[in-house]
This record gives sequence, structure tokens and C-alpha cells, in this order.
Amino acid sequence: MPTYNFAAGPAVMPEPVINQIQRELPSLGGSGMSITEISHRSAAFTDIIERAEADLRALMDIPDDYAVLWMQGGGTGQFAAAPLNLATTHQRIALLDSGHWAVRAGDEATSLGFKVDVVGSTKADHYHTLPELAHPLTAGTYDYLHITTNNTIEGTAFHQLPATNGTTLVGDMSSNILAERYNVRDFGLIFAGAQKNLGPAGVTIVIVRRDLVHQVSHLPSMLNYQLFMDKHSLYNTPPVFAIYACGLVLQWLREQGGVDEMERRNREKSGRLYDFLDESKLFYNPVTSNARSLTNVPFMTGDADLDAQVIAACQAAGLMNLKGHRSVGGLRASLYNALPLAAVDALIDCLYHFEKDHA
Amino acid sequence: MPTYNFAAGPAVMPEPVINQIQRELPSLGGSGMSITEISHRSAAFTDIIERAEADLRALMDIPDDYAVLWMQGGGTGQFAAAPLNLATTHQRIALLDSGHWAVRAGDEATSLGFKVDVVGSTKADHYHTLPELAHPLTAGTYDYLHITTNNTIEGTAFHQLPATNGTTLVGDMSSNILAERYNVRDFGLIFAGAQKNLGPAGVTIVIVRRDLVHQVSHLPSMLNYQLFMDKHSLYNTPPVFAIYACGLVLQWLREQGGVDEMERRNREKSGRLYDFLDESKLFYNPVTSNARSLTNVPFMTGDADLDAQVIAACQAAGLMNLKGHRSVGGLRASLYNALPLAAVDALIDCLYHFEKDHA
Repeated sequence: MPTYNFAAGPAVMPEPVINQIQRELPSLGGSGMSITEISHRSAAFTDIIERAEADLRALMDIPDDYAVLWMQGGGTGQFAAAPLNLATTHQRIALLDSGHWAVRAGDEATSLGFKVDVVGSTKADHYHTLPELAHPLTAGTYDYLHITTNNTIEGTAFHQLPATNGTTLVGDMSSNILAERYNVRDFGLIFAGAQKNLGPAGVTIVIVRRDLVHQVSHLPSMLNYQLFMDKHSLYNTPPVFAIYACGLVLQWLREQGGVDEMERRNREKSGRLYDFLDESKLFYNPVTSNARSLTNVPFMTGDADLDAQVIAACQAAGLMNLKGHRSVGGLRASLYNALPLAAVDALIDCLYHFEKDHA
Repeated sequence: MPTYNFAAGPAVMPEPVINQIQRELPSLGGSGMSITEISHRSAAFTDIIERAEADLRALMDIPDDYAVLWMQGGGTGQFAAAPLNLATTHQRIALLDSGHWAVRAGDEATSLGFKVDVVGSTKADHYHTLPELAHPLTAGTYDYLHITTNNTIEGTAFHQLPATNGTTLVGDMSSNILAERYNVRDFGLIFAGAQKNLGPAGVTIVIVRRDLVHQVSHLPSMLNYQLFMDKHSLYNTPPVFAIYACGLVLQWLREQGGVDEMERRNREKSGRLYDFLDESKLFYNPVTSNARSLTNVPFMTGDADLDAQVIAACQAAGLMNLKGHRSVGGLRASLYNALPLAAVDALIDCLYHFEKDHA
């Protein structure tokens, strides 16, 4: 019986990538040294990080006037880095409150002394749909508008971006980077912790328009975009293994057909699950249909005890990590790029039989 | 022919650890999931991080009134975190300038707005010996005194600590943590990037006396000791793989006999190499004998072309990454815990024959 990992992050990685890491772990490229032992200044690692960047640029069609940075600290690190680096004119940012991680981003900016204006929120709707701008943004007011392109916990995603009226758009893309097509040019800054859709925890991808980056005083080096841009992410020792593993995932993505093919597969995977849930008499997904995420699908019966039984039945069938986030309850299936369609079919099959047995 | 990795960091890890990582990479504990895929909230990872902390506490004899934090960002991250968290009374720190990394620590604190007083320096001696305090520290002047316990580039180590006269001591122990015995009680804060003597790059160990930790406003979460202490290093997703790998190294260290046994081996390894260098007519180590590092041994012929030939001859013999740091030149052998005595013997043998052939 295969095991399928539906975790929200850290999450499933492509099986061929895991196999390759295992195969070459003791001796990278016949060097006699492990990827965990090689210098970040070595020719071997230079090749790795340069190829990873080139593959990411090809996959996302990143223009040359955007820098790619490999940082540490995850989305939480960027909740600080984004305002510290970019909110230097107005010290004021706009935020679309679409759920937990948007709130966390706002809280971090506030705690660092920035003014954060919530310019739209669906909190009152339990985040079952996406916020719109209550009013058009006034030009020259905000350093940027922050959105969470995919809300891992609530199961929503911006498939269309808000009209920013010239204000720079910052996207926390942690849980749907490379899962669906976005136009990088629509953003001034995109960031993503790797551990959801890209690789192991421990590295954070930052894509930033170069003209937004400038020297900022009193800024810790590890959060300094200018420094990371100038030093090509090698000011100090980067997380070598995590970058290597992301690089292998990026190669795998290109071999599989890139972002458009991933989006097609993710629409297929999530579509099958949403269709099942919408037809089910027992399970439901609470999200407005046009706001539904391709990567994170929360669902429930409405009865917490019954949900727990479903989770146990799934686990017995090798369908792992389906417990929903505590703030939402129920179940959550994360359908990242590396999760095969067969996993979704197995899940639907398990849910179908559970429902039949409990009718 | 075995390959020996003398790199200064990222650096050699114990072979049994590399083998174990490889063996269990596709399925941690029979879970069907890789360590790169499991949640940081899972029972499996909870066991890993708790055992790693317990092993570190046992190895270093860390008292209960010290917290152990697993952070990101390496020594450079801590060059910011240390003053931001601890230098809140006087906004002023004292620094013993023992070389490159001490200077970098001082520069980071200065750039963040702290006053940094260099209270001793051996810069004029090319850092060939360790600085002493020019004057006793005046009580109530500094939030702490920063030292680099082992200077990776210059090849010196504080085997005896400076008398701080009651001032809190902060030790950057990145390149000799667990390589020789220090008394944790002598420090208010110890930090170390893992990638020299502990594991793969991507995780930073912080050992801090709990009473020094307090709420600080306007502090990025990823640098916030109070938050990491309160959340047991799990405020956000930690670098799961790097912590796991460090945990395996810590287990290996305990099996090998702990820090005292490591210090004995490192004295043996470095002693053999220093003895050879001191007797050599071709090679020399420039460091004052009582300041010599157990883990990093720079040496040279005094002729850069000849040094390059030595490096090539070593590489041909499977002795890798012996090029010295550009600021010092020559060669550097890093003899971390995971490097076996046989590697040092092979190096001495290679150097001996090179010298004989060039006599």
C-alpha cells in the first residue's frame, strides 16, 4: 500500500527527487563528499545555485530586472524583511486580510513600527471568500499592498490579482508558488518558504524587482535585500542542502512540463476533489467556488467526532496528515505539485466508502 | 584511496551519520515519508528536536537555567540577534578583536546603532596571537563582552577565557563548539552555526542564560530570543532536515565519548600536525603556541606558488579543500570532530614527502 502525504508543509516532495538525494548523498558528483559537507564557495555548489536560479527564472518567466534571492527564515522572516526593505518612503503598507498568514504578516509589520491599513477583509465571512479592496488605493499613500496569494489554512487563492492603482504589490506565495501561473511583472516582490511546494524547510525564495531594492540603515544583514542581491545570496553560508534539494525539484518541474502543466494537474486534482465534496451529502468545502485554492482543500462533515473518524480511516488507508488546521477544524488535503493524481483518487475513494458506510 | 575533507565549513560530517541519513532518507522510521517531507509539528520531529536538545545539554553540561534555541541565519544572524536581544541597557558592547569574524560581529552591531568598543586587538600582530583586555572592564558599562572562542581563519582559540569583571560574556563558538571543553556557566550567551563542527549549514545553535532574555520591541521575530524560548524554537517552520542531521551528529558524539574524548582526539590530531610543522624546514604555522586552535591550522611555505603546488599535491592524494583563506594565504587544515586521525596522518605524510622532494 503506498503512503500519500497530504501535509500542508513541510510536505510531499517528488519521489524521483528523494531517490536522487538518497543516491548521491554520500558522494556528490563522485567527489567523495556529501552535499551536507561541501563548501558554498565550491565549484559544485556554484553550479547548483546558478542552475537552480536559471530553472526558477525559466519556470516563472522571471524578467532580468528582478533579482532572485535565497534567504533563510521562511515567510515569517519575510514578514519583517518586506517592510524593512520596501516600506521606507511612507512606512505604511496596505493589507488584504484573507486569513491567518495575512494577519501574521500585518502583525509583524506593526510590531516593527510600520502603519498597517487593512484595506479589505473577509474575517466576518470566516475567510470563506477573498477580500476585495473596499476603496481604490490612493496613489502615493502606501509603500505596497500585501496579499497572500494562497491561504494555506483557509483554502482560498487569488486567481485574479487586485487592481492596485499603481501601488506595488507584494505576494506571499509560500503555498502556491509554481502551482499556478502568475505574472511576475504584476508584483514588486514575491516570496515563498520552500517547504510547501518547493523543497525541504530551511530556505526562502525572494523575487524582487531590482529598482525597489536600496540601502537601508540599521537593518540586520540576514534581512537585507541589497546585501543578498549584491552578494548573490552568498554573503554568509547559505542553507546548502535545502538549496540543492530545491534545485532538484525545479529540474523535475521543468522535466514535467513546467508551471502550466502543474497548473493543469493541480486543477485536475483539486477539481476532482471539489466535485466529490460538492456532490457529497456528508462532506463539504466551505469556500466560495471562484476563490478555491488549487493546493489546499479544507473540508469537514460538521461533526468533529465524525471528522476524527474520517481522519483515522484515511490514515489506515495510507492517506496521511489530513487533519485540518485547528482554527478551521475538519480535514485539509494539500495537493502540492509533488502529490500525484493517484493520491487524490485514493482519498476520494476512501471518503466515498466512508460516506457510504455512514449513510 | 579515501577522500578526506579538510574544509573550514561547511565541513566533514561523521561517516556513520551520512550513512544513516542515506539509509532512512526515503522513509523516516518506516513512515513512508522522508525527513524532508515531515511536519515540524509531527510526533517524529518532536522526538528528534527534544532528543537533540537533551544530547546537546548532556554533552556540554548545559544548566537548566540556560535555554537552547535552534535558529536560522548562522553566525551572521547572531551578530545582529546578540546585541538586539542583550544590549538593551547600555546599547554598548565590548569586543576582543581576534580576527575576521570578531570584526564582522562588531561591524554588524555598529551598523545596527550599538556602540562597540574594541577593548583589545591583535590586528597589529596579524592576529597571530590572542588579544588581552587592555584594561579591566568597568562594571556597569557594557551589556556584554563579545569573543570569538575559535578563529577559523586565523587559527587561534581561547583555551582560557578573559576575566570579564562581572560583565556578561558572549561567545561565538561556531568553529569549536563541542571540540573542546568550555564551561557554559562562564557565558551568558553561546552561539554557533552548525556547518563547521555540528552538521549541515542551515541551523544555528543558541545557548542563552534565561534571565538575560526579555521582551524587546521592534525586533524581527526570527531574531527574537524571547519568542524562540517561549515557543521552543517552533514559532514557525524550523529547518527540519538540518536539525535532524545535527541530532544524529550529537548522538554520534555521545557514542564516541563526548566532548572530553573529542578534545583529547583534537589535541592529538592538531598536536601531530603542529609538531610536524614546527620541525619542518619548509612549512610553518604562524600562531603563538598557546593560542593555537585545535580545529583550524593555517600553514604555509612563505611562497604562494609553492603553496599552490602543495595544495595540488594534497588534492591528488585525496586531501581536499586545504586552500587557506584569502586573507591569510597558504594552506589551512580544519580538523573538526568528524575528521579522523588517519586524515591528519595522511596529510602529514603528503607534506613530508612534498618537503623531501623539494629539499
